Amino acid sequence: MTESIYHPTPRIRRSVVRDILAFHNRPDMVPFAGGLPDPATLPVAAIARSAQYVLARQGAVALQYGTTEGYEPLRQYIANYLSEGGFPSTADEILITSGSQQGMDLISRWLLQPGDPVYTVEPLYNGALQNFEGHGASIYPLATDNEGPLPSALQHTLKDRHENRPGGFVSLSPRRKESRNRGPGLVYLQPTLDNPSGRIVSPERRRSLARAMTGFSGWLLEEDPYGELMFDRNRFQYISSFRSHQSLLLGSFSKIVSPSLRIGWIRAPRKAIDTMLPLKQSMDLHTNLFSQMVLHRFLEDTDLQEHLNLTRKEYARKQKITLAALKKYGLVSASAVAPAGGMFLWLRSPVDSDELAKLALKYGVAIVPGSAFFSQPEDGKEFYRLNFTAVDMDSIEVGVERLARAMKTLQGSVATIEKSTVYV
Amino acid sequence: MTESIYHPTPRIRRSVVRDILAFHNRPDMVPFAGGLPDPATLPVAAIARSAQYVLARQGAVALQYGTTEGYEPLRQYIANYLSEGGFPSTADEILITSGSQQGMDLISRWLLQPGDPVYTVEPLYNGALQNFEGHGASIYPLATDNEGPLPSALQHTLKDRHENRPGGFVSLSPRRKESRNRGPGLVYLQPTLDNPSGRIVSPERRRSLARAMTGFSGWLLEEDPYGELMFDRNRFQYISSFRSHQSLLLGSFSKIVSPSLRIGWIRAPRKAIDTMLPLKQSMDLHTNLFSQMVLHRFLEDTDLQEHLNLTRKEYARKQKITLAALKKYGLVSASAVAPAGGMFLWLRSPVDSDELAKLALKYGVAIVPGSAFFSQPEDGKEFYRLNFTAVDMDSIEVGVERLARAMKTLQGSVATIEKSTVYV
Repeated sequence: MTESIYHPTPRIRRSVVRDILAFHNRPDMVPFAGGLPDPATLPVAAIARSAQYVLARQGAVALQYGTTEGYEPLRQYIANYLSEGGFPSTADEILITSGSQQGMDLISRWLLQPGDPVYTVEPLYNGALQNFEGHGASIYPLATDNEGPLPSALQHTLKDRHENRPGGFVSLSPRRKESRNRGPGLVYLQPTLDNPSGRIVSPERRRSLARAMTGFSGWLLEEDPYGELMFDRNRFQYISSFRSHQSLLLGSFSKIVSPSLRIGWIRAPRKAIDTMLPLKQSMDLHTNLFSQMVLHRFLEDTDLQEHLNLTRKEYARKQKITLAALKKYGLVSASAVAPAGGMFLWLRSPVDSDELAKLALKYGVAIVPGSAFFSQPEDGKEFYRLNFTAVDMDSIEVGVERLARAMKTLQGSVATIEKSTVYV
Repeated sequence: MTESIYHPTPRIRRSVVRDILAFHNRPDMVPFAGGLPDPATLPVAAIARSAQYVLARQGAVALQYGTTEGYEPLRQYIANYLSEGGFPSTADEILITSGSQQGMDLISRWLLQPGDPVYTVEPLYNGALQNFEGHGASIYPLATDNEGPLPSALQHTLKDRHENRPGGFVSLSPRRKESRNRGPGLVYLQPTLDNPSGRIVSPERRRSLARAMTGFSGWLLEEDPYGELMFDRNRFQYISSFRSHQSLLLGSFSKIVSPSLRIGWIRAPRKAIDTMLPLKQSMDLHTNLFSQMVLHRFLEDTDLQEHLNLTRKEYARKQKITLAALKKYGLVSASAVAPAGGMFLWLRSPVDSDELAKLALKYGVAIVPGSAFFSQPEDGKEFYRLNFTAVDMDSIEVGVERLARAMKTLQGSVATIEKSTVYV
């Protein structure tokens, strides 16, 4: 037996986060590296009640195989939630997935061939980047300003690729292997509090971006895990709602109810759902039905708005404490402003953040270097991401102080630290 | 907007079973088409107890993100179970997946390129067939006898492909796109009570098949959902245990505890697990942690052997009643013998079973035509599959009688029905 059977998985970047998370659970570590909700917000008692209710009411049905589409009442709940929020939707436009990561993976498998383009912003959620890269897609970052990606940049990028090529919007990549029946790629955005930067695309910009896709023959992939985590305002309209015939919207309960349950969803035109179903079936038959039923019961039984308000309040408090500590230890300027919600701070660093992240582990604090969030890792070396939601209130300052010491050691001098800024 | 954005999913066969299952839940339908466990065997009360225990003991940890590898105590339980059964294993050789379907999909994505060979038997589990086809693999059925695939056939097939080609065991397919770092395909088997045929590979044959892989530089993929469902005997040794350095073993709790929980596992050399982890992460981050914990608590809290014995007894009884009804209505010969366990009967039909399945729905009984289980669907047209575990005891004879009427209608005469036989 040779080593030849151990050939590597195709094109999958080993996640930096994953490697750092291996140290993350050490008891002495201040864990700023994860993307975990605050444990205090996880509704343990309500889920316990829901589980009992479901098994008492549904009996064996809750432990049996389910349908590939997902649990009908949960699909209906999501459709109602979208409709009430201004995006008219029906249950048959909803497909339940095993977390929104699986939704993204399913869509990538359906739509992306090696070399196909993904138009997006950078920094970019590392799980999305890993998945797109795993399917061999090429990342095309769009120019952005404070309100989000520039509609003109999106329009011109799509148009350029159109005009340079006969036959409409088709991939230009030399890596393309099969041209028949293939699409022109995706526009991928997390418009609300995107991971890692915390950017929020303004309501007006959302309409403009939707308009900028006119003539594009691919799909918008809009992901929205943090849409309900703006601290002081209600959700903005989905870009998808302005372009519903051409959009695949990914949602998740991981950040607002529980990640463990792995319940996400895709909202798409019914025909797209029908097309994706055989692929979903071949991936895992269906999403955990027991958890779908428990989640649905929880949603019926709980005042979700009240639950969200408590979560937002908690997160706002932790963000404030974290920002204050960062200022106190000179890791950001005194005038730095944090994002209007979410779970992360995205910081600029005057040192190589890969080095910083490695050294920080030795000082007992875990962060994610910016390289994880760029298709060209070196583009991220001045940045790092800090999650504040999963860290104990009392440990935040301890962690920031450790990080400042690591920074000083790398820098040799504290003088330039003041140049760092929270990047919103 | 044109229809062009709706290009089909690549190479995924729309599951016949899926289409039939759409009718399956009609209240007047006798549902022989599924592959569902008997609802009476699903441990509702014990799972309810386990869920309460887990949430009371683990609290928020049970609702938080988990690790990609899976819940450590569950991996240890599975490793112990394998070790005690004669296949020494450690927890770091176990990867938890979202059902064994996801394990198969993960392995296909790792190892199969379009055109790569899969050496297996036909008929073949339709979920596996759909998945392999979805990855563009070519199916090579092996010659079999009553004890399973012929080791000589396996050896010669592997050797032929070796000798016809310079450079060792590499794929011959003209569809191969990237030859670098690619493997020579898979040997895929369900050696115990395989779906649909119910065949059991004898213990001696297992050793011989393992030996026949000498010189093959690919992997054995052994799937074992029904290993514990032989009615009157204990599990046979896994083929993998005779070739552990080169085997990927897929297990599942769907048929012995609950399908809804979607908990399967891969047992593989540690280096293979490490190689697969980034891919698993990109697919769904990790498997539902709450359900892993609940299942683990159930396994700790319950006498699994007693639970299995009850299940086997129930299934043996239902199988007996089904076979008797098939004999009574002339759908099998009086001397027909059923498999020694499992959930299915695989029947030979004197009519086109695609036609039979369609007509049967009109008579109020659902079956799966044999075409679903062959890479060349026409090879299956004399066969159909019948699941007896999910049908009420009282409905079995009703369903068989309806099926006999459908058969008569198609045949015009009852005379040749006697030629049908249970195919073991």
